[in-house]
Amino acid sequence: MTRSLSDTPIAADDRGLAYGDGLFETVLVRDGEPQLWPQHMARLARGCRALGIPMPAAAELDGLPGQAGAGLMVLKLIVTRGSGGRGYLPPSPAEPRLLWQLSRFAPQVERWEAGVRVRHCRLQLGIQPALAGLKHLNRLENVLARSEWDDPEVAEGLLCDSQGSLVEATCMNLFWQRRGRLETPRLDGSGVAGTLRAALMERLPITEVVAGPEVLAEAEAVWLGNSLQGLWPVIRLDTADGAMQRCWTLAGLRRDIQREAHELLGYPAEFGH
Amino acid sequence: MTRSLSDTPIAADDRGLAYGDGLFETVLVRDGEPQLWPQHMARLARGCRALGIPMPAAAELDGLPGQAGAGLMVLKLIVTRGSGGRGYLPPSPAEPRLLWQLSRFAPQVERWEAGVRVRHCRLQLGIQPALAGLKHLNRLENVLARSEWDDPEVAEGLLCDSQGSLVEATCMNLFWQRRGRLETPRLDGSGVAGTLRAALMERLPITEVVAGPEVLAEAEAVWLGNSLQGLWPVIRLDTADGAMQRCWTLAGLRRDIQREAHELLGYPAEFGH
Repeated sequence: MTRSLSDTPIAADDRGLAYGDGLFETVLVRDGEPQLWPQHMARLARGCRALGIPMPAAAELDGLPGQAGAGLMVLKLIVTRGSGGRGYLPPSPAEPRLLWQLSRFAPQVERWEAGVRVRHCRLQLGIQPALAGLKHLNRLENVLARSEWDDPEVAEGLLCDSQGSLVEATCMNLFWQRRGRLETPRLDGSGVAGTLRAALMERLPITEVVAGPEVLAEAEAVWLGNSLQGLWPVIRLDTADGAMQRCWTLAGLRRDIQREAHELLGYPAEFGH
Repeated sequence: MTRSLSDTPIAADDRGLAYGDGLFETVLVRDGEPQLWPQHMARLARGCRALGIPMPAAAELDGLPGQAGAGLMVLKLIVTRGSGGRGYLPPSPAEPRLLWQLSRFAPQVERWEAGVRVRHCRLQLGIQPALAGLKHLNRLENVLARSEWDDPEVAEGLLCDSQGSLVEATCMNLFWQRRGRLETPRLDGSGVAGTLRAALMERLPITEVVAGPEVLAEAEAVWLGNSLQGLWPVIRLDTADGAMQRCWTLAGLRRDIQREAHELLGYPAEFGH
């Protein structure tokens, strides 16, 4: 990290380390202004409620992005349940810890225009409705999935759950167009409900669906997106063995979803596809 | 912890905190002698292989229990993948961190003889074969399950997976006797494969089965156990609403499983049931 602003020492017995007992957010900050801040705070609050962790004070959280200074930065927040309790039993009341760090950030702009190649992952996400959608600290599934490939030409890996339904990519949400309609996987069993996804769904008619990967064969276009990188069109999908499965052309690609995404994040909306 | 021997500072960017990207063990140490050490080291090695984390050197690990001094202690080891990587992508090679702490320990001896009351948990464990059996740092399911009750009379909570099969208790493995035979849930989809469980299965004919909670209605006896507490007979099982579902008497209880368990841990084997 280029700039570590956290002066909170991490206790060796912090439950965030011991059990992944906490939540995180990574927020794009432009010249001290956080992007999609209400969505990040809403997801953090939802996570705190679900885990029974007291939400840090809004005044404390709201003051952080302003310390970023000029330029594009990422603010990473971690809220843990703190120390204490007896084994898995949480302490009551908990004294949560807020850790945060700011680092310089540059999005991969070439991918906005040129699109990306992605692959299927072998790992299937477990189904856990009690944690689905939250950005909690239990992310071993994502780590294992991201470990499945190291070809830098492959930008992301698509994940299905153990019932074979599409969920997301390792660190991005998934969108596609089918018969002219925008769709995205429902996230009530696994996956992270991204803040860009939430904001896009308020601006565009995007339907949440339960669908296996075969739906991508019918898709006229596919995108991946998150609140740091913006939206990438997918131009090629590989199997988990690395064989080419499907390609999409960018000619005639609808522009509204990327335009909205980039307006939400302050990124440029227009390129010459 | 009464005695913190770890002098490794925990980096704020450690992947153990960020993603739960690591493993742990809690080892009973009696007068400097670790109990079930081969089983703990075997599980740690299995976890390291599964996650692609280099195993700490045996010489380093083997030297830790001896620092415990006299009496009963718990040695808690945490192995994380360390810092680095890009997001979920692990660093290559990883430089793992080994953290450890020793604390005084006293088992709940009255439960060996009097047995315990347990309940069903509402939470169902997600099914993830890639992580099943490992003692990894992604333990939010256990934390949520343990949060379901705070009645100190209830010693443990039983967990099923999302397909309704019995798995374990929040921090103990589950055993029962049915038609005279010892059985324990298979752990290839979720749960932690306990070291006491592993050692017991080498000493006694215990069959791994896939079974829903209705199997407990047929069970002549039920036990919970782990490598710190030893083995507890279950005398009462409650529903998740706290209603009594089934009781077992300790009269005529077979003694072999508790005797073997306590011999493995150096606890007394005989009480007057």
